[in-house]
Amino acid sequence: MADARRYCKLPSPFAMKRGGVLHDARVAYETWGTLNSACDNAVLVLTGLSPSAHMTSSAEDPAAGWWEDMAGPGKAIDTDRWFVICVNSLGSDKGSTCPASINPSTGEAYRLDFPELSLEDVANAAHEVVRTLGIERLACLVGCSMGGMAALAYMLLHPGAVRAHVSVDTAPQAQPFAIAIRSLQREAIRLDPNWANGGYDIHGDGERYPDMGMSIARKLGVITYRSAMEWNGRFARIRLDAEQREEQQPFGFEFQVESYLEGHARRFVRSFDPNSYLYLSRASDWFDIAEYGDGNVMEGLRRIHVERALVIGVSTDILFPLEQQEQIAEGLAAAGAAVDFVALDSPQGHDAFLVDIENYSRAIGGFLAKP
Amino acid sequence: MADARRYCKLPSPFAMKRGGVLHDARVAYETWGTLNSACDNAVLVLTGLSPSAHMTSSAEDPAAGWWEDMAGPGKAIDTDRWFVICVNSLGSDKGSTCPASINPSTGEAYRLDFPELSLEDVANAAHEVVRTLGIERLACLVGCSMGGMAALAYMLLHPGAVRAHVSVDTAPQAQPFAIAIRSLQREAIRLDPNWANGGYDIHGDGERYPDMGMSIARKLGVITYRSAMEWNGRFARIRLDAEQREEQQPFGFEFQVESYLEGHARRFVRSFDPNSYLYLSRASDWFDIAEYGDGNVMEGLRRIHVERALVIGVSTDILFPLEQQEQIAEGLAAAGAAVDFVALDSPQGHDAFLVDIENYSRAIGGFLAKP
Repeated sequence: MADARRYCKLPSPFAMKRGGVLHDARVAYETWGTLNSACDNAVLVLTGLSPSAHMTSSAEDPAAGWWEDMAGPGKAIDTDRWFVICVNSLGSDKGSTCPASINPSTGEAYRLDFPELSLEDVANAAHEVVRTLGIERLACLVGCSMGGMAALAYMLLHPGAVRAHVSVDTAPQAQPFAIAIRSLQREAIRLDPNWANGGYDIHGDGERYPDMGMSIARKLGVITYRSAMEWNGRFARIRLDAEQREEQQPFGFEFQVESYLEGHARRFVRSFDPNSYLYLSRASDWFDIAEYGDGNVMEGLRRIHVERALVIGVSTDILFPLEQQEQIAEGLAAAGAAVDFVALDSPQGHDAFLVDIENYSRAIGGFLAKP
Repeated sequence: MADARRYCKLPSPFAMKRGGVLHDARVAYETWGTLNSACDNAVLVLTGLSPSAHMTSSAEDPAAGWWEDMAGPGKAIDTDRWFVICVNSLGSDKGSTCPASINPSTGEAYRLDFPELSLEDVANAAHEVVRTLGIERLACLVGCSMGGMAALAYMLLHPGAVRAHVSVDTAPQAQPFAIAIRSLQREAIRLDPNWANGGYDIHGDGERYPDMGMSIARKLGVITYRSAMEWNGRFARIRLDAEQREEQQPFGFEFQVESYLEGHARRFVRSFDPNSYLYLSRASDWFDIAEYGDGNVMEGLRRIHVERALVIGVSTDILFPLEQQEQIAEGLAAAGAAVDFVALDSPQGHDAFLVDIENYSRAIGGFLAKP
């Protein structure tokens, strides 16, 4: 299969925010379009917790990407005009150095010896990609969900490195409801005896693997990524057909919504490294822009300087509520940016940015089309 | 310790909605106040999933009850005026026959041989208590959360048996978001190897017990019983003190909200029988008043005939959303009842009825004080 994935070596040692270092680390990324001679048409996209750098298809890799309908020739993130970069987060197992990678000092996988990971490290690693591509200043930095928090860190840690910013369904700090959900997801994995303190068979091809914990974590994720409103219309109380039910299982699935969650879990469980999930999940809980603003969220945001910003949120998002998007918009405006704030009523909850392409395209495409 | 608990023997065999029968079954209940000679001052309270019949303290049992500040002399549910009955749900392990009870035909605990339980069975068992106390018609039937669904069933199955109704934070049918949450709670228990297909050591005093599954189920419950808004004010991003942290645990708790959930889980895990939890949880998913209205929720509600009703809900409830309270109010009104609808903005989410006593007291007390 064709592969559009590139790798960027990080400086070695690569110093982490919370004190550890990585040696010979790398991050994976993909690009679309062409960097112009002025190097001023670059758009960087930072992803949510689980996607890879394969945001959209290309001649090299025609498989559909995780934001296929958003980016490409003539699309909202127009690869005919922009040189678009998508980076796989440091700590994620889609090609970047992560807890499942080999620790060069031992020849074994890091597992829990991976240093403590923060979203600032994710941001710094992405900045290395941009720097090594010869780009001093991004035309636009787009951050979705967890990637939106990393984007805020990127702009704080690298002043002047971003001209315009698109903030999508994210937060300036993790609030207790989101922390509670992620903590419970991590706990489901930690309590799975097959997690074995991080010692399970890596790559999901062995016997010992925390399928149970990963499945519960993913289902809880999907429940909080969507919305009750959407599901009322989509699933209502529709039962599974007799042949779809787990007849042998006491208390087995009976409703379509249960089968939907099971499908999501099955696709995820062995395709994402559990230790990497734990590290990235905790990094999200740790993120707090108030650290950059003398303990104050708005003050932290006021220290970000971009020319223009688009902040999008959705009223049905229970994980990154609309109030947090409003905060980001207000803070960036207070810092002097020209801010467009778009509050959508898409029924799909937090995942709306992946589903309601029509409305998100209109907002992002409109913003990027402006001079 | 003094005990105010009474028992009501159910007719034997007691036929269950979905086809099974129970022999020599009973339900536990408590009463407060005095039944008048006309037998027309009785108020029955049906509870949420986990509370016992001990709703409030009494001379016989001075321990605080689960709705201590709501019911008692001079309180909203005034035991000086009303003869108040609270029934422990059939299938719950707080004195009523449940999966942890001895099956008289085998001499062993029922476990998964307990017949399929529905909220209609819970309602019918509560009706037996009322009937054996010599009460033909309740002055008021109060149902909270799961007990609110059982109350709707009670009124449908026993026409004329209720004069006034108080509906608190409940639903006319389980919707897919609530089903998804409860299904995941059940799955956490089912996947715990120590659940052992229901074969764990009953009463929580043995080695083999699904602590892990029960803990995850309870934490997920607490997350959905409260609200993000309340937690922002209550926990924000406050860290645990060093001595409160689980230093030995990788990815151990760090934020107060995590410790709060852990405290809730610890108090619950060995105090509620896991199989009983599974049966009652599934019964909630099965409940659908549309079954009584030719497939239509509003038509089902229109078949309930009471003189007056009070319907209370709270805007921060994500498990039993306000729209469902509005549906109940509309349906009962369409059936001819004089309906008071109270929509509160209490920050505590679904649990507001247990916490925001001031507002719930005012509504319920005001309704009951009317002639």
